[in-house]
Amino acid sequence: MCSTPSSVDVLIVGAGPAGLAAACSAAQYKMSTRIIDKKEGRTETGHADGIQSRTLEILESFGILDPILKQGIHDVDMSHWRSGKDSRFGQVLLNQGAVEQAFIEHLDKKDIHVEWHREAESLHFSPDAGGDTQHFPVNVGVKADGSNAYGLEEVETIHARYLIACDGAHGWVGSQLDVQSDVASEESTWGVLDIIPITNFPDIRHSCSINSQPHGSVMTLPRENRLVRLYIQLREDLDEKALQHHTSSPRAMVETAEQLMKPYNLTYKYCDWWSNYSIGRRLVKNFRPHERVFLTGDAAHTHSPKGGQGMNVSIQDSYNLLWKIRAVIANGADPIILETYETERRPVAEQLMELDSQLVHAYEKEQKDTSSGIYEVRDQHAGFMAGVGVVYAHSVLIAQERNSKPARNLQLGMRLPSVLVVNQCDGIALQMGERLMSDGSWRLLVFPGDLRQPERMESLAYFTDSLSKCLRPVSLQRKQDPEWRCPLVELLLIQSSPRSAVNMLDLPELFHPFDDIKGWDYWKVFTDDREQAYTGYGIDEGGPGCLVLCRPDQHIAWIGSMGDTAGLRKYFSAIFEMPT
Amino acid sequence: MCSTPSSVDVLIVGAGPAGLAAACSAAQYKMSTRIIDKKEGRTETGHADGIQSRTLEILESFGILDPILKQGIHDVDMSHWRSGKDSRFGQVLLNQGAVEQAFIEHLDKKDIHVEWHREAESLHFSPDAGGDTQHFPVNVGVKADGSNAYGLEEVETIHARYLIACDGAHGWVGSQLDVQSDVASEESTWGVLDIIPITNFPDIRHSCSINSQPHGSVMTLPRENRLVRLYIQLREDLDEKALQHHTSSPRAMVETAEQLMKPYNLTYKYCDWWSNYSIGRRLVKNFRPHERVFLTGDAAHTHSPKGGQGMNVSIQDSYNLLWKIRAVIANGADPIILETYETERRPVAEQLMELDSQLVHAYEKEQKDTSSGIYEVRDQHAGFMAGVGVVYAHSVLIAQERNSKPARNLQLGMRLPSVLVVNQCDGIALQMGERLMSDGSWRLLVFPGDLRQPERMESLAYFTDSLSKCLRPVSLQRKQDPEWRCPLVELLLIQSSPRSAVNMLDLPELFHPFDDIKGWDYWKVFTDDREQAYTGYGIDEGGPGCLVLCRPDQHIAWIGSMGDTAGLRKYFSAIFEMPT
Repeated sequence: MCSTPSSVDVLIVGAGPAGLAAACSAAQYKMSTRIIDKKEGRTETGHADGIQSRTLEILESFGILDPILKQGIHDVDMSHWRSGKDSRFGQVLLNQGAVEQAFIEHLDKKDIHVEWHREAESLHFSPDAGGDTQHFPVNVGVKADGSNAYGLEEVETIHARYLIACDGAHGWVGSQLDVQSDVASEESTWGVLDIIPITNFPDIRHSCSINSQPHGSVMTLPRENRLVRLYIQLREDLDEKALQHHTSSPRAMVETAEQLMKPYNLTYKYCDWWSNYSIGRRLVKNFRPHERVFLTGDAAHTHSPKGGQGMNVSIQDSYNLLWKIRAVIANGADPIILETYETERRPVAEQLMELDSQLVHAYEKEQKDTSSGIYEVRDQHAGFMAGVGVVYAHSVLIAQERNSKPARNLQLGMRLPSVLVVNQCDGIALQMGERLMSDGSWRLLVFPGDLRQPERMESLAYFTDSLSKCLRPVSLQRKQDPEWRCPLVELLLIQSSPRSAVNMLDLPELFHPFDDIKGWDYWKVFTDDREQAYTGYGIDEGGPGCLVLCRPDQHIAWIGSMGDTAGLRKYFSAIFEMPT
Repeated sequence: MCSTPSSVDVLIVGAGPAGLAAACSAAQYKMSTRIIDKKEGRTETGHADGIQSRTLEILESFGILDPILKQGIHDVDMSHWRSGKDSRFGQVLLNQGAVEQAFIEHLDKKDIHVEWHREAESLHFSPDAGGDTQHFPVNVGVKADGSNAYGLEEVETIHARYLIACDGAHGWVGSQLDVQSDVASEESTWGVLDIIPITNFPDIRHSCSINSQPHGSVMTLPRENRLVRLYIQLREDLDEKALQHHTSSPRAMVETAEQLMKPYNLTYKYCDWWSNYSIGRRLVKNFRPHERVFLTGDAAHTHSPKGGQGMNVSIQDSYNLLWKIRAVIANGADPIILETYETERRPVAEQLMELDSQLVHAYEKEQKDTSSGIYEVRDQHAGFMAGVGVVYAHSVLIAQERNSKPARNLQLGMRLPSVLVVNQCDGIALQMGERLMSDGSWRLLVFPGDLRQPERMESLAYFTDSLSKCLRPVSLQRKQDPEWRCPLVELLLIQSSPRSAVNMLDLPELFHPFDDIKGWDYWKVFTDDREQAYTGYGIDEGGPGCLVLCRPDQHIAWIGSMGDTAGLRKYFSAIFEMPT
């Protein structure tokens, strides 16, 4: 760590899921970054435990899905939980500590090391903190407390272009900038713990909800390494002293749970983690309290763990933000796009608050009249809870819906659902989602239809010709470092004729660029041999062809007919300076 | 490495695929081991590149499948190659260096470190090298050459119970024991290289065979990281000098290949590895030249790389051997079982020689009359080449086939094909193969049929009762170290009634053993909800039930009807002392 830079593109305060995801994104987009946390190390275990479909897709796009899938529990028989049917991935259950560990190991490989024991103590902005992205206007004084393992200066000022506050509820950054919140709280108190249960309850390896009126209720959730997570709602009518007893130790909590689970018995020898909490909801009034400062994750919103959403929404916040910062710094995008962080993520946070409130009320209602309130709420919000149902509204980064629908089943602002396609050259099948790795580039998916028809081949050639004229200015990089040279827009072709009918080298060279050392690129042209792409996306194979533009975060930015280079140009003109 | 023991259960000489697989097996079975190699490090790249289905299953049973699947190329469009239809896994293409790296990283985690630069220089046996397994009769003097990175003694004697020679063709161990070989050689000469090709040949990302009479032929095989492997057969009629020119450099070889591929062009800027060889076949006369010494992999047999078999058969040799040594050392099995290493693996090596000879001849025949000889040979041997077609003959470890066939589709001696089953308790689907991790235990799969019928439940209870009496003596461990306490026989139940119809806790406790700290074991009872097990294995759901015993290497050892404890006892009596 001797070469730790004192000026970085992004400084991240807080190394929980939101901060680690931010650091991972920064590494992925080749921005310089440092991540500090005053804690002494990662979450040991316990805490959040549900990883939703969309989060798994994001982890895949970072290349860190394998350790999560390997350690987690998959496709548990869930009475209450539904994974998004629209994703390749179901829900995985794994403790927050293991998820953080996967991030940390990935960052270590990229030579980014979380600086534990490192606390921010002052924050000021250089006077030129305005539009110029080439300076480092955010100045954060940090000190190393306790064991200074990094050989760093005891006290140091880190200069950053942007500061990402991932330091949780009531965190230091928010308090420095006097960030206000809207707060709502409920009366119910919950205990939560991870134990290896010893029980004759037959469904202990299911996700269950057990109500025992009027004493309270228990939710169970099977976990990795024989663990089971228990959420125990304590009786509303208990007085303070009784409540204190019931939540004072895991032993007392499990005794309460056993009461609620009668006639079955429940005990344990090993407890991995425990805590208790009162349900409350908090949403900051401003996700961006300064032009150069963003709040993500718990720093922006907190709620009850009932929906298994916290870790997911935190990771998704950071994922939404970082590529935008990269586009501004590296590609010269108009900083106006940074406004979409709040316009896109605040509605998600608000929906989360609403869902949480509905879940808590449904739960209480269920307790009273044993209706299926919870199931209804969960069913209704299944897509949102899986993370794949989030649709961003029209903005400078999401085009406006039009009447013509060249891809009937795709909606602007949704993340592109994956379909199985087949590589034109080697015949290997792969998920479209796997191909959309996070590297900061937009992806233009070109669907020309059946290329055995000569007019289709001609229109494809005509389109790519005008496209390279239209987009050339955008492809220029602001930074000259070759490290940064990823194409701003990568083109991928998905054609619908049989694979053997087309020779890749007959296609326009934009779809198989040549490199002096690496030769042709064989990984940009695909066929719809599995018949999932055209039908799945609702693209007419006999129509004029279709273009689908995905943002670097896989959300659909723009859809047009084949040849609509004017529309594409219009989209990018709003973001980038486009000399005529 | 300061605590490196000088006495070990197994000493492994040679750290190629055979040696690394042996070390990995030893670690898996909790035997102490050291592995030395006089080379300075692992294979950098190149060499073997095909990983067959059965090898992938073995790697899975060690828990090191992920890095292989992640880096390798899958399911390539192969005209000549077929993966075994009977496995969940197809063929994966990945260079030998990356495979060795995966082994080495896995071993490092188990605190077993390959000792490079370490060469054996003397071998003698203690006089008591006979049957007593509690001594270390093999004494190998080793020296550290060059950079002694391990802080080890310069010269040292390692004492071992068994010596595994994985030091390749004409290796040191074989020469010490004067091991003789049968040798056959062909006249053809081949060049082999891994390049990133620059070419307009449209099928370069396929596996192709290109014949250009009378000049020679080229085989192509797509690889990871844009690489393509080329095998180039040089003209038979070339004289020594011309041959020397054509094989002297990768440049000359690629020029030869380009000639053969006309009218297409072929060149390259990056070459990852190259070599050339004359085809030869070598099989040692004795796989076990001393009671305590075994040869595996190339030390026992070498052949041409035509079938992509070398690395696979080497790994499979070691996998076959090590659990037997473990059973002798740890469980007190009769050392007679060690004889089955040669009786099981020699026929595989012989079949490999025969296949190799047929392939080479088919190739030459094809060159002359363009018949489809190669396809026929490959089709005929597809199961063998995928590694899943290997069936071990009757021996002390494989019972004799009988007339009654309670599992019609299973054959004694074959490795158990995997089927998808569903965990009784949490409803999670998993492959039977995943559950058969390599830990040294036999697995008795119990198929009682539909447990909703009370007589089935009764017969199951009666069976488990007599089973625990019958097998108790065998479960005793020779070593008292608690580390070694894995059950000699693990019981798994696969029942055919719907999952919800059975409560696991109503089943005999053998299928859900209780642990004071961990509670019940929920991972031994499965249902056939996916309807693959009973039909796949050919077990009659309405019949009397069936027992299938798998050896620690997943090969089927014995099949019997439900309740045939006498047959089971007879099987184990031949291996273990069974006091009445």
